[in-house]
Amino acid sequence: MRKILLQLDSDRAPSVFDAITAYDAGAEVLLQHGGVQPEEVRDLVYGAMFTRGVGDLKNSAVFIGGTDVAKGEAMLREARNAFFGPMRVSVMLDANGCNTTATAAVVKILSAGDPTAMKVVVLAGTGPVGQRAAALLANEGAEVILTSRTLERAERVCAALAERFEVRVTPAAVPDADATRRVLEGAHAVLCAGAAGVTLVEETVWRPHATLRAVADVNAVPPLGAGGVEVTWDGKEIEGKKLFGAIGIGDFKMKVHRRCIARLFEQNDLVLDAEEIFALAKELAR
Amino acid sequence: MRKILLQLDSDRAPSVFDAITAYDAGAEVLLQHGGVQPEEVRDLVYGAMFTRGVGDLKNSAVFIGGTDVAKGEAMLREARNAFFGPMRVSVMLDANGCNTTATAAVVKILSAGDPTAMKVVVLAGTGPVGQRAAALLANEGAEVILTSRTLERAERVCAALAERFEVRVTPAAVPDADATRRVLEGAHAVLCAGAAGVTLVEETVWRPHATLRAVADVNAVPPLGAGGVEVTWDGKEIEGKKLFGAIGIGDFKMKVHRRCIARLFEQNDLVLDAEEIFALAKELAR
Amino acid sequence: MRKILLQLDSDRAPSVFDAITAYDAGAEVLLQHGGVQPEEVRDLVYGAMFTRGVGDLKNSAVFIGGTDVAKGEAMLREARNAFFGPMRVSVMLDANGCNTTATAAVVKILSAGDPTAMKVVVLAGTGPVGQRAAALLANEGAEVILTSRTLERAERVCAALAERFEVRVTPAAVPDADATRRVLEGAHAVLCAGAAGVTLVEETVWRPHATLRAVADVNAVPPLGAGGVEVTWDGKEIEGKKLFGAIGIGDFKMKVHRRCIARLFEQNDLVLDAEEIFALAKELAR
Repeated sequence: MRKILLQLDSDRAPSVFDAITAYDAGAEVLLQHGGVQPEEVRDLVYGAMFTRGVGDLKNSAVFIGGTDVAKGEAMLREARNAFFGPMRVSVMLDANGCNTTATAAVVKILSAGDPTAMKVVVLAGTGPVGQRAAALLANEGAEVILTSRTLERAERVCAALAERFEVRVTPAAVPDADATRRVLEGAHAVLCAGAAGVTLVEETVWRPHATLRAVADVNAVPPLGAGGVEVTWDGKEIEGKKLFGAIGIGDFKMKVHRRCIARLFEQNDLVLDAEEIFALAKELAR
Repeated sequence: MRKILLQLDSDRAPSVFDAITAYDAGAEVLLQHGGVQPEEVRDLVYGAMFTRGVGDLKNSAVFIGGTDVAKGEAMLREARNAFFGPMRVSVMLDANGCNTTATAAVVKILSAGDPTAMKVVVLAGTGPVGQRAAALLANEGAEVILTSRTLERAERVCAALAERFEVRVTPAAVPDADATRRVLEGAHAVLCAGAAGVTLVEETVWRPHATLRAVADVNAVPPLGAGGVEVTWDGKEIEGKKLFGAIGIGDFKMKVHRRCIARLFEQNDLVLDAEEIFALAKELAR
Repeated sequence: MRKILLQLDSDRAPSVFDAITAYDAGAEVLLQHGGVQPEEVRDLVYGAMFTRGVGDLKNSAVFIGGTDVAKGEAMLREARNAFFGPMRVSVMLDANGCNTTATAAVVKILSAGDPTAMKVVVLAGTGPVGQRAAALLANEGAEVILTSRTLERAERVCAALAERFEVRVTPAAVPDADATRRVLEGAHAVLCAGAAGVTLVEETVWRPHATLRAVADVNAVPPLGAGGVEVTWDGKEIEGKKLFGAIGIGDFKMKVHRRCIARLFEQNDLVLDAEEIFALAKELAR
């Protein structure tokens, strides 16, 4: 009985990246569906639930992707609502790579010290990766500040995180370089989670910084998010700081992604969202 | 040379149910096409006909699905028209599961007695499953009555069956519970073939019935088609009647579906529509 | 690590023909994408480039198909533009079978003599197959004449070939049978590259012809392009001429197509367009 992964993608063309990664992680058959709307999910998932006996359902699983993370979250809700009793299959959400990227970045940052003694700043953290990274860090006991250009936007996101993850993240407005310098005062780690091609912290800021121990950047498109931090760096130490570029983080993200896919086929009742993927990432990093 | 199944589905998202069933039945590669219009079928089928030598064409086959049964029938006609001489591949029609469900229900009903001595009522039989079940039962020699809320609708369907299957099925109007009671007088079996969630015959009717020997229901959504007949029952006997619920029938339907897919790859000139699928179902039931 | 082929097709339904041929040629997994626009190609190809290490990228490849050859060419340009440094995968263009059909026809024609001593007429040569065949023959040293009903159309195509292939092909207007007779004076080979169901040269013209040594026809739909040349002929000799019908050429075309797919997975930096596919076809014919 083959391991069949149902790839549900809200983009018209289902992700080639997710498809090849799934095969390399051990999926034997991929059923790709593009342009999927949340309201179509139930019937698609029923097809996975009602074709094999309960004892065999661990060989069927669902992966939810697509660049639209909010739609991915809605699709995950629909999939979970379709399940009942033992009639369920394992499901993973990684729309736009948000969960695997965020967890990989957080694991890198945590390599720099005990989270309960860390103050971490997530710069431009209102996107899917920044939000998840902030919540996971806060959940580990770190003091976390999430920034946006406007305070209102940061506050809204922090309120949403409090509800979704039951964590306290502090919002901050960081409209310019001066504000960046101020928000980093006393910080032990910084994660640049902004858009591709936007520098969020200059080398002149992080290099001489007194308390920073880790600088991580998930932007792979020059100009990079952390000036002077090369994309391939994976913990390179400069001036007592561990530095992580987008590819350094990305290599670990790929391992996390593959491990998650493999896990889907070990039981039929897993739900892999941010928290569960983070737990797997920490295991992998040991 | 791999066994390749071309899945042609008129729904936008090709059926996951049909896909997983195909893999579990022995198809090695599935080429899924959704949103297929009948006029697109010829070129798609040509792709299956012209890529392998005639001696190898048994390794390529076509499955026609989708919730729209009429469109599925049109697609089957197009596929058959594309074939010429030995240039053909085996093809199966099971749009909305109509053929496998109908044949499974009929096999269950036939387990209750000799069809040539049976009077069978197909309640709410104007849909794809009811129509096929009525025709197959009539073809086995049973006296068959097909009901609808209006006589006109039942008559139209029976006329179509006479043309398509060359069988005589008697139409009857059954607008309410009294009419149900009347139409069941002297019947030996009843098949509830109506819409999901609609009760067609109450337990108080079938339980004390003098001549009924089988009650079958293909509706899995409560309220069930036959009151008091549990979905998982597969021949449970109560008061001398064999009782079949939707899952009891569905388990056998899955076996029929898988056997049909496997058969497609044994030769290159099979056409599996209602009659041929019924023949396979009877073989399986022996 | 499985050999994964990304099939990018500009038609709504990706070609079944290309899919089955790819599997039979050794691709282990096919990721099919239909309705692909050139501007979508980059992200799809990125998915193939960024999922495996450089050393493993030879196990990922791209096939570009679809009936619209101009769109296929634009898609190939987009794919090549996406590559950088060693981050690339092998790619093949065979939209509408243009490259494999043209190269197969040319190899057949070349079996009739030394190209540098041949005058070859490509009748109705303005389509994708005719254009490529003319260019490849010219590149081998043959004197090539490409015809169209109007001189202007033939001239435009020859100018485009001069730019794309750096070859000299002579345009000629051939609006009727008399003109066909005239343009064939002194020719050693003729390729009928016109639309399906249109006869371009009558048997009464080629059979008594003094210098012709090869007649090839890629039209499989009666009436055939070369009157009296049966579709299955693969070098049959009549009156000193080698005769090639569409299926005779097509069988070799299939071998070329399969060989190309297999080659894609031997390295990660192949680009298989007309010239490279022709080189493989010549190797195969040896």
